Amino acid sequence: MESLYVIKIGGNIVDNPALLTACLNAFAFIEGHAILVHGGGKLATSLAKDMGIEQTMIEGRRVTDEQTLKIVTMVYAGNINKNIVAQLQATGVNAIGLTGADGNLIQAHKRIHETIDFGFVGDVDTINKNLIHSLISNGMKLVVAPITHDKQGQLLNTNADTIAQSIAVAMADQYKVHLIYAFEQEGVLFDMQDPSSVVANMDQTMYNRLKAEKRIFDGMLPKIDNAFLALAGGVISVIIGKAEQLNALIKGNAGTTIKL
Amino acid sequence: MESLYVIKIGGNIVDNPALLTACLNAFAFIEGHAILVHGGGKLATSLAKDMGIEQTMIEGRRVTDEQTLKIVTMVYAGNINKNIVAQLQATGVNAIGLTGADGNLIQAHKRIHETIDFGFVGDVDTINKNLIHSLISNGMKLVVAPITHDKQGQLLNTNADTIAQSIAVAMADQYKVHLIYAFEQEGVLFDMQDPSSVVANMDQTMYNRLKAEKRIFDGMLPKIDNAFLALAGGVISVIIGKAEQLNALIKGNAGTTIKL
Repeated sequence: MESLYVIKIGGNIVDNPALLTACLNAFAFIEGHAILVHGGGKLATSLAKDMGIEQTMIEGRRVTDEQTLKIVTMVYAGNINKNIVAQLQATGVNAIGLTGADGNLIQAHKRIHETIDFGFVGDVDTINKNLIHSLISNGMKLVVAPITHDKQGQLLNTNADTIAQSIAVAMADQYKVHLIYAFEQEGVLFDMQDPSSVVANMDQTMYNRLKAEKRIFDGMLPKIDNAFLALAGGVISVIIGKAEQLNALIKGNAGTTIKL
Repeated sequence: MESLYVIKIGGNIVDNPALLTACLNAFAFIEGHAILVHGGGKLATSLAKDMGIEQTMIEGRRVTDEQTLKIVTMVYAGNINKNIVAQLQATGVNAIGLTGADGNLIQAHKRIHETIDFGFVGDVDTINKNLIHSLISNGMKLVVAPITHDKQGQLLNTNADTIAQSIAVAMADQYKVHLIYAFEQEGVLFDMQDPSSVVANMDQTMYNRLKAEKRIFDGMLPKIDNAFLALAGGVISVIIGKAEQLNALIKGNAGTTIKL
């Protein structure tokens, strides 16, 4: 089986042109198949502010109303996605930018919740494996914006971490998939105050022990739980680390590599 | 050779949800290969107004400065393109939305003009015929936003009529291409005041005669001149007419059909 790298870059990377460029230049060096999933960052919030649109919060969580959906579609699928694609094309990468609606790449449903109506937020149902296989076999690298659709004509705002994980798991029967969460930190740290205290390798036993000893930062727990779900779904390894060290992350020379 | 329909829909259609839906429903009925190129409409102008961004005009022509490019990228490639794709997907059409940057579909250069700097406006250089062939052979219908790139990392605002014509001519050696300009009028009219005075068929001789007799509305002349350029480039027919009559246009039962 061929390798496939599914790389999620967080909003903090997207918001920082220098970091983003470093990350995209590293992405351009990846040999073989690769898919980049990008988050949204603060651009959508600042555009909403410019347009005088209030963000609705319910129980401390942001609601995607109609105006907010319009804004995130414009910012994520328009401005961010197309600028990343153009920048990659300039480095010689044949990038193609897609949302979940394009070619029915990611079908989702509007989130169902007992008490909160999150508005136009989508939870992933299916990944179009044939489309991904066909495009990457033709030498293209995919750039995926965190917007999906319900196949009924409705676009939906969708978590980029989840999209990356769903794509990684879906492709795991055809490719040796490595899932990389690239963000602003060095990886999983033993000590949040010490960037050199990176946990280089982690398996389930070690994770359980570190969690029991409360030696992992709370904010990191959902990411690692997701990582083990991806591994259970057939992904070979999940790597967490600094976006601008993408090449070192892929080689296992930086960040935290999580395996079963 | 198989047929390929390249359909341009104007900004007035995009601005009118009922007209747009009628047009997309008609598009969904097209058997075989089809590419939809959409214009921008007034949404970009109203967003610029909401954001308090002034439109720069030089000698009566709009200039695409950096802020305006950001806005048209958000509106055309984000909001309009993705909503059209989602709406087509709901009708069972496997639509995929692209700008010129995606898969290097349309490479362009920043417009060169003796006296006016139009800013980030692109004139088309090359069409990626292999990409189009590959996607439509896989049963997809393309939805193209009027944004291109220069392969140096720069997105460019590009005329949708020109994009439709460039794609039509580029594909004419592999497909029997029909180019359709769908807008708010019935077609080329003998009498601008009388919508029933449609010129059903026109060739170069008839055009020259009508033009000499000043029986064609001045605003229509560039469209028709472009049509003859497309025909000279190998396109089989150019059809001009009402967007919501798309199916009748394709069958030659409405609008103006222009042939050499």
